[in-house]
Amino acid sequence: MSKQPELDDFRVPYFDSSKKNGKFSLDDFDPGMKPFSSGSKETDRARLSEIGTQLDNLQERLHAQKQRRVLLVLQGMDTSGKDGTIRAVFHEVDPLGLRIVPFKAPTPVELAHDFLWRVHAQAPAAGELTIFNRSHYEDLLVPTVLGELKADAFEQRCCHIREFEEMLADSGTTILKCMLHISKDEQRERLQSRIDDPNKHWKFDLADLEARKQWDAYQSAYRDTLAVTSTEYAPWYVIPADSKMHRNVMIGELLLRTLEGLKLDYPPAKESLRGVKVE
Amino acid sequence: MSKQPELDDFRVPYFDSSKKNGKFSLDDFDPGMKPFSSGSKETDRARLSEIGTQLDNLQERLHAQKQRRVLLVLQGMDTSGKDGTIRAVFHEVDPLGLRIVPFKAPTPVELAHDFLWRVHAQAPAAGELTIFNRSHYEDLLVPTVLGELKADAFEQRCCHIREFEEMLADSGTTILKCMLHISKDEQRERLQSRIDDPNKHWKFDLADLEARKQWDAYQSAYRDTLAVTSTEYAPWYVIPADSKMHRNVMIGELLLRTLEGLKLDYPPAKESLRGVKVE
Repeated sequence: MSKQPELDDFRVPYFDSSKKNGKFSLDDFDPGMKPFSSGSKETDRARLSEIGTQLDNLQERLHAQKQRRVLLVLQGMDTSGKDGTIRAVFHEVDPLGLRIVPFKAPTPVELAHDFLWRVHAQAPAAGELTIFNRSHYEDLLVPTVLGELKADAFEQRCCHIREFEEMLADSGTTILKCMLHISKDEQRERLQSRIDDPNKHWKFDLADLEARKQWDAYQSAYRDTLAVTSTEYAPWYVIPADSKMHRNVMIGELLLRTLEGLKLDYPPAKESLRGVKVE
Repeated sequence: MSKQPELDDFRVPYFDSSKKNGKFSLDDFDPGMKPFSSGSKETDRARLSEIGTQLDNLQERLHAQKQRRVLLVLQGMDTSGKDGTIRAVFHEVDPLGLRIVPFKAPTPVELAHDFLWRVHAQAPAAGELTIFNRSHYEDLLVPTVLGELKADAFEQRCCHIREFEEMLADSGTTILKCMLHISKDEQRERLQSRIDDPNKHWKFDLADLEARKQWDAYQSAYRDTLAVTSTEYAPWYVIPADSKMHRNVMIGELLLRTLEGLKLDYPPAKESLRGVKVE
């Protein structure tokens, strides 16, 4: 009997500069597997709601304490479910405590700066839980696939990212990065359903089909990127995401474990308030 | 028999420069009244959930259409329930479609600019629903109570605010402003409960009691401010808010009516996608 899968089985091995690139392969992860699903939709839904309530509670402490910062990075191919994850997992979390930052194609002003400029500006403040919907990793993936980023420039950017994330972590930011891993077949179905429903056309651009044609190049760029940017202070997890419910539960469990690990609590009572009566 | 109250009975009369200050008085609104409550907590809760679902649906269209911008301004004394409103009314709205901007005491950099500088930077973009948790109105209320803003400077700021809001409205922003109206007794109870619960101390500062001592001055400043800044393009509503449930339902109804009035719909189907099959 194979052992019960654990969250850390899906963590990309930490980058080790002495072992060039490591043995990590995306092919080791079947996008269709559902290791953190109970097998029953109803049970999964109940678990997700339970996770939501706990996340809400932990987020309030994070906010009250105003010490730690938490950053969740979501990456994945088109239709992999970044928006859906945010909607499903953070449904129960107080909107006051969440900040969601979507990164689109850079504007001319953003392009006129270094690639981390716009990202740094959106880093979470003390007490904040911030979600990056796409991120600085797009600046590795897209130009790599387009052939605009040569190997040494790629290495250099990865190095800058590691150092940037280490600085954030040293300054009190807990970073969790999730790659939503879907199969090419699943993407076809999801894209097709957007095309077939006129009310979903706004989510669709013909350029999305161009990116799909480069599926293998993207998978390879993801593999190379994850291998050299998964670190102890900013680990990458591969999330099998063909099942939306599994994806939601797994990301919820990961974030819950991360927040629980922070030992968040309300700040100590203020002595100055003892016995105060409001007139 | 008195007629069924309507939302617009709680709208502050539009500013009319020919009628100096108008006849509007906050005393005409009893903070304890619950005109939009059904009388049953259960029915109110169900209605609030229904409103939430509809707001979520409308917000998706707003986002898909990317034409209109919506700004909800929440103002009120300490403990009047700004945070609670956001949590309760927007619970069902996709966190992706909301942006919440808390305005605290201005930083030195913000103070080095005009008072609308930091506010303008946070105005909603096309397709966005943005909530200001406090706002540029603090820059009228606080200095007025502290005696730092003379009558002509007050008039001038109000004029700047009207012109600023008109410019936002002319650029496609729908503005709705709510003053959460609580009684002095209700505030005492809420402040006291924060003092009595050590886990709520982080929400409390002894300075809050100083502001309470100037209750009448604040009520008067609110009255003067609302009277000259309620306009057709950015109306103020007084929300009786001693009952949290009533406050939530009423603000929900107001926002629902506002969004419904925008005739939001999905953008037209893209002809270019007709019959496209994903490979």
